[in-house]
Amino acid sequence: MTDKLVLHEDSRSGNCYKIRLTAALLDLSLEVRDYDIMAGETRTAEFLETVNGNGRIPVLQIGDRFLPESNAACWYLAEGTPLLPEDRFDRADCLRWMFFEQYNHEPNIATLRFWLRFVGDANLTDAQRAMIPAKRAAGLAALQLMEDHLGEHDWFVGDGVTLADVALYPYTHKAEAGGFPLEDFPGVCGWIKRIEQLPGYVPMA
Amino acid sequence: MTDKLVLHEDSRSGNCYKIRLTAALLDLSLEVRDYDIMAGETRTAEFLETVNGNGRIPVLQIGDRFLPESNAACWYLAEGTPLLPEDRFDRADCLRWMFFEQYNHEPNIATLRFWLRFVGDANLTDAQRAMIPAKRAAGLAALQLMEDHLGEHDWFVGDGVTLADVALYPYTHKAEAGGFPLEDFPGVCGWIKRIEQLPGYVPMA
Repeated sequence: MTDKLVLHEDSRSGNCYKIRLTAALLDLSLEVRDYDIMAGETRTAEFLETVNGNGRIPVLQIGDRFLPESNAACWYLAEGTPLLPEDRFDRADCLRWMFFEQYNHEPNIATLRFWLRFVGDANLTDAQRAMIPAKRAAGLAALQLMEDHLGEHDWFVGDGVTLADVALYPYTHKAEAGGFPLEDFPGVCGWIKRIEQLPGYVPMA
Repeated sequence: MTDKLVLHEDSRSGNCYKIRLTAALLDLSLEVRDYDIMAGETRTAEFLETVNGNGRIPVLQIGDRFLPESNAACWYLAEGTPLLPEDRFDRADCLRWMFFEQYNHEPNIATLRFWLRFVGDANLTDAQRAMIPAKRAAGLAALQLMEDHLGEHDWFVGDGVTLADVALYPYTHKAEAGGFPLEDFPGVCGWIKRIEQLPGYVPMA
């Protein structure tokens, strides 16, 4: 890895932390540029033009190229390392859990944390408030699917930590900030402890 | 690829078609098992136990192993083929568009098609109906981001078709069924034509 790595991020975002955690577990150096998403700093003309036309962080800058989407950035860093298995099925199975994370987990568990912890219940729109029950149910279903797996396995893919675990950990271990009772998911709680004991582990800011 | 490939699918689903299109472009044989998601056939105890605990299709069965998540299944099929670039950044950039597809595109463009074309406006819940304006706006923004890219490039990554194009094509070319005016996105329309002229291309059922 010879190109300089710069992470464009908001340190409160679990999607950004995912990339920092991947880099830390791999002992890679990342330069960080911080943006305040609540203040619209990722919607400026300059950001949209040079960093990400989608107006979102994280973006991993590799030399002069920009890579949006947290899980794509983690994949870039982890290719050829033990965080991605050598077996073809297992590698695709990591992506299976990473797509599950972005489709079934993050839009429910992370969004409720963002709404309740950062936006604040009083500032939600009526449309947002109407979506809470469905997001609550879908978030609990995502945690239950994780629990069903972790009741029988220590890790999501194979016998050790992979990118599947790194992608699912950030918003899971902060799920209580969105009102999800982690103590109801003992397999998930045990897995969180295993991640936090990994060499190189760094906590979320 | 020596293991038999079986696609568990509902042929009306663009996520399932993605895998059939990937296999067709790669000239791979897929056996198909059809389920009617509207009749709950992916929520039976047997399906949840043996095929996918998440109750969703598609699932790609490879020998006796099961791989949920459409884009993970496409990745499994495409590794080592020209549908995934040799360059490390470009490979991650394919994933960037594939995560964009599942996060920004499918939940808006595919969901409105499903609600309006298959569930029917009269059968929507109040909560679903309240979500239509936000999904309409987010779907249009996703199409605009594609248009901005395709105004300057023939393909999403590099100089030829990749999995990024295959993942974005299914729900994009059916976007009008969800009320999205494709004629407003001429770059997208040209790209759709390029995909439909690829050797091996098969249409959606």
